Amino acid sequence: MSKPLRKTERSRPRRLHARGTFDREVTYAILDAALICHVGYIMDGVPLVTPTLHWREGDAVYWHGSAASRALRTQAKGETSVCLTVTLLDGLVMARSAFHHSVNYRSVMLWGKPQRIEDPACKMKAVEAFLERVSPGRWDDTRPPTPKELKATTVLWMPIDEGAAKIRNAPPVDDVADMGLGYWAGVVPVETRIGKPQPSPDLAAGVKPPPYLRKIRIG
Amino acid sequence: MSKPLRKTERSRPRRLHARGTFDREVTYAILDAALICHVGYIMDGVPLVTPTLHWREGDAVYWHGSAASRALRTQAKGETSVCLTVTLLDGLVMARSAFHHSVNYRSVMLWGKPQRIEDPACKMKAVEAFLERVSPGRWDDTRPPTPKELKATTVLWMPIDEGAAKIRNAPPVDDVADMGLGYWAGVVPVETRIGKPQPSPDLAAGVKPPPYLRKIRIG
Repeated sequence: MSKPLRKTERSRPRRLHARGTFDREVTYAILDAALICHVGYIMDGVPLVTPTLHWREGDAVYWHGSAASRALRTQAKGETSVCLTVTLLDGLVMARSAFHHSVNYRSVMLWGKPQRIEDPACKMKAVEAFLERVSPGRWDDTRPPTPKELKATTVLWMPIDEGAAKIRNAPPVDDVADMGLGYWAGVVPVETRIGKPQPSPDLAAGVKPPPYLRKIRIG
Repeated sequence: MSKPLRKTERSRPRRLHARGTFDREVTYAILDAALICHVGYIMDGVPLVTPTLHWREGDAVYWHGSAASRALRTQAKGETSVCLTVTLLDGLVMARSAFHHSVNYRSVMLWGKPQRIEDPACKMKAVEAFLERVSPGRWDDTRPPTPKELKATTVLWMPIDEGAAKIRNAPPVDDVADMGLGYWAGVVPVETRIGKPQPSPDLAAGVKPPPYLRKIRIG
């Protein structure tokens, strides 16, 4: 985990400032905390941003979808890199001045050229890792995909090689001249909460929510 | 609010399926519920996805940042449209089969060519609307921007004209053949929670968190 991310090329926006880092451990912790990413790609000359669920294994990030998805097919074409961005909003930063209001957050941007997983055994392993990310313990308590279902699924991955993480986690920073103003200043936390499992209306009587659902973590 | 969104051009991915809608009221409700969007644009031939806070007024969506931001300058160039995507994760949908696992969510994709607000009075109004979206009541309880601060701020907007909303809000849908399996099926809700305000360490004694902070709504 010690090899730093490659810095973005000069033609990309400079992400290296006070809040930026190329540290893999920091980057991976953010990727692992988030369930949703936004993938940017170009189709017919215009940028598109598609939300999807991602997961990480080692030095690679994965996402998946229907084999019929035009978005995934375009992303895998490799004509340009894609940009995979993850953002977690942690708090509203309320300063004494409107100007210094901000947010606390963790974000990661990654660039790369995604590839399809072709081998069915590898794809099965990837899908298992995904479900286990979403709900640890679930894989052994669900019917696994059939060969046909696996065929109907596209899994993309790309090496985590080029990108940047950004974090703000601090109280407001006000101008000295404003410190005497009587306005409240501080942080209003924003949190992701996992609610109480709601059984499917067609669930057979007596099937209880499995205890492993308590292991679900987002944010 | 009755004029429907323009459907995406044929060259864009087909978004009109079972979960898609072009209804303005639905689209606006999703835009208004979310605080964070992801803006996709092209810089030097590659797609970039930048998270930012957005707000809506009437039939337009707004976002802002530093006047020095290369991202905002690129987005405002108008060489291609940008794609602004908002996603709210509402639940994990756990089916009896791995294949039919899904998520409940609300999302909006918008395309357009952003423009800068040049007039300082209009910019001031926009910044006020933004702060009031984040924290209703805050604008009157903070120091407003100086002309210099306003100059250091870029506000972009684009008409809400072309795009699509997608919603999934339902229990799992399992294959008939799997209904007899004893696995639990249902939805695990995912919610955004506003935490208890944390005063700034440098806050003067006796300044209490204002009651209007309870009006903050995300999700």
